[in-house]
Amino acid sequence: MGNENYIYDCIITGAGPAGLGAAIYTSRDRLDTLVLEKFMPGGQIINTDRIENYPGIPQIDGVGLIMQMQKQAQQFGADIQNGKEVTGLKKLENGNIQVECDNEIYTARSVILSPGSSYRKLGVGGEEKFRNAGAGVSYCGTCDAPFFKGKKVICVGGGNTAVEETLHLTKFAAEVIMVHRREEFRATKVLVEELMSKVNEPGSNLKLELDSVVASIDGKDKVESATVKNVKTGQEKELSTDGVFVFIGMVPNTGFLDSFVGLTDNGFIKADCAYLRTQVPGVFAAGDCRVGAAMQLATAVGDGVVAAMMLKQYFRDPQWWNEPVSDAMQPQGW
Amino acid sequence: MGNENYIYDCIITGAGPAGLGAAIYTSRDRLDTLVLEKFMPGGQIINTDRIENYPGIPQIDGVGLIMQMQKQAQQFGADIQNGKEVTGLKKLENGNIQVECDNEIYTARSVILSPGSSYRKLGVGGEEKFRNAGAGVSYCGTCDAPFFKGKKVICVGGGNTAVEETLHLTKFAAEVIMVHRREEFRATKVLVEELMSKVNEPGSNLKLELDSVVASIDGKDKVESATVKNVKTGQEKELSTDGVFVFIGMVPNTGFLDSFVGLTDNGFIKADCAYLRTQVPGVFAAGDCRVGAAMQLATAVGDGVVAAMMLKQYFRDPQWWNEPVSDAMQPQGW
Repeated sequence: MGNENYIYDCIITGAGPAGLGAAIYTSRDRLDTLVLEKFMPGGQIINTDRIENYPGIPQIDGVGLIMQMQKQAQQFGADIQNGKEVTGLKKLENGNIQVECDNEIYTARSVILSPGSSYRKLGVGGEEKFRNAGAGVSYCGTCDAPFFKGKKVICVGGGNTAVEETLHLTKFAAEVIMVHRREEFRATKVLVEELMSKVNEPGSNLKLELDSVVASIDGKDKVESATVKNVKTGQEKELSTDGVFVFIGMVPNTGFLDSFVGLTDNGFIKADCAYLRTQVPGVFAAGDCRVGAAMQLATAVGDGVVAAMMLKQYFRDPQWWNEPVSDAMQPQGW
Repeated sequence: MGNENYIYDCIITGAGPAGLGAAIYTSRDRLDTLVLEKFMPGGQIINTDRIENYPGIPQIDGVGLIMQMQKQAQQFGADIQNGKEVTGLKKLENGNIQVECDNEIYTARSVILSPGSSYRKLGVGGEEKFRNAGAGVSYCGTCDAPFFKGKKVICVGGGNTAVEETLHLTKFAAEVIMVHRREEFRATKVLVEELMSKVNEPGSNLKLELDSVVASIDGKDKVESATVKNVKTGQEKELSTDGVFVFIGMVPNTGFLDSFVGLTDNGFIKADCAYLRTQVPGVFAAGDCRVGAAMQLATAVGDGVVAAMMLKQYFRDPQWWNEPVSDAMQPQGW
């Protein structure tokens, strides 16, 4: 049971790249820092076995990178506790914040929310099995497209991200098949035009399978084929492929926040883009959980460091929380 | 002479952490990327011989980190040219951007401005000599305070950053002397109160030398003492010290931009905090050069990656440039 009379300088909820980036800074600044992580450190990056776009590190796997960040934070004094699921938060009258964690209650002068987000899953056979270790199921074209140079891939989805990422994959893969459950795309007009123009190129490496879903993903040690089912005719066919990219949305892990801070309709935390302040004084949001996040490893880390830097500004002057963002940082102010 | 008829996808001005972070992303996305660097890659981080707060890398020197980032960008195809000083930019009627570089002209569909900023110097004897290799002169307390645990330091300045960083140093150093040229501080009231309360603590490790300047920094292989001169009496005294921290401001390297993009009174580039768009469509700002930057290695890298991600959005839909930032990212919109 946590001692609720003890007051941490900062509690960080979630030990992914944003949370650990923040913890390295707060603990190095000698702020008493507690990191509460639901499972084990890492967030969704631990599902990635080959990262080559984190500036400064030529190649590393997600687990290795996270272990290193964790060690750095711990060396500076951060207390990282695993298996601690935050179930609720409360702003106290004295300005401190109470963090409920199962049956324990912790108290802090400030909180950095960094619960991350998860890719929405297809929920079909083979998806989990081939998720890890570059076996062939991916949720991020920007991250993994270069690993499919000259190969065959299937993309699933029909929104902006799906169209963008599919077009991106056509620059790498030898053959791309885009599977979409409807005939119409949700993506904006300009993107759909670009997609169709690519499909209609002579000898195009991009084909569409509309009114269709992926029913299963198959293979021995890695993806070898996928079964695609037409939802109108019910007909199924097996397509040989090296990878399946799933682009059907992100789900921020913000359910536990309930109405503690403001959320968008999609569940992302409302936070000002300049300083990452939420609607509750002393509570910052960092990483994929916040609205407008660029959803990359380096940008999540950057967010964590920004929150850790601004937290000191809040300690110095709590009134700062209500100061508007400078006009110089807002197009409408220019 | 550059072939001005050749059109790059992206020109990046400045190969510091922000510029190289951006280049890794744009070139990995198969965008034809040219990086123009005035001197050699690195920016001010190459003056740092010990970095321990870049998440994911336990310890590295500035040169080593930058070389690694440069190699990553080059492996993905970025063309990094050193000794190329950008002297002017021009937006063409067809939407492209011309970049003048001495007698050469390059053209691109987009530009990421990442020229960085420099610490304002005292301009006294010994400052340059002891600048490198942890010899004792520093311009960043957040970065270097932990290296002065139990040691004696002198801090110079009287603004917000000077007071904050000096207070920060008192948590590490055994003795801190703050030298300020006037009797009054420019820093905000709450900070000055905190400073004075620290000075007045019994047995405080913080002393003030007001109406005083550092006239020289001395030592053999590293800083051993500094001469402090009272500007009212003209009296000089030599104080023994292990380090001199200079907190007299930052100067963004934006002189070459003239009136191309909007700048603040202090010369920082006006850029919206959500997407780093400047006033000129297709021209982003990333890193220490922009208003509101957190001035840390990881935040500069994060900026570069954000700009590289948003650039694709601009290519898809140039009208996006004029879209306002979502209310969910602005406190006044909540």
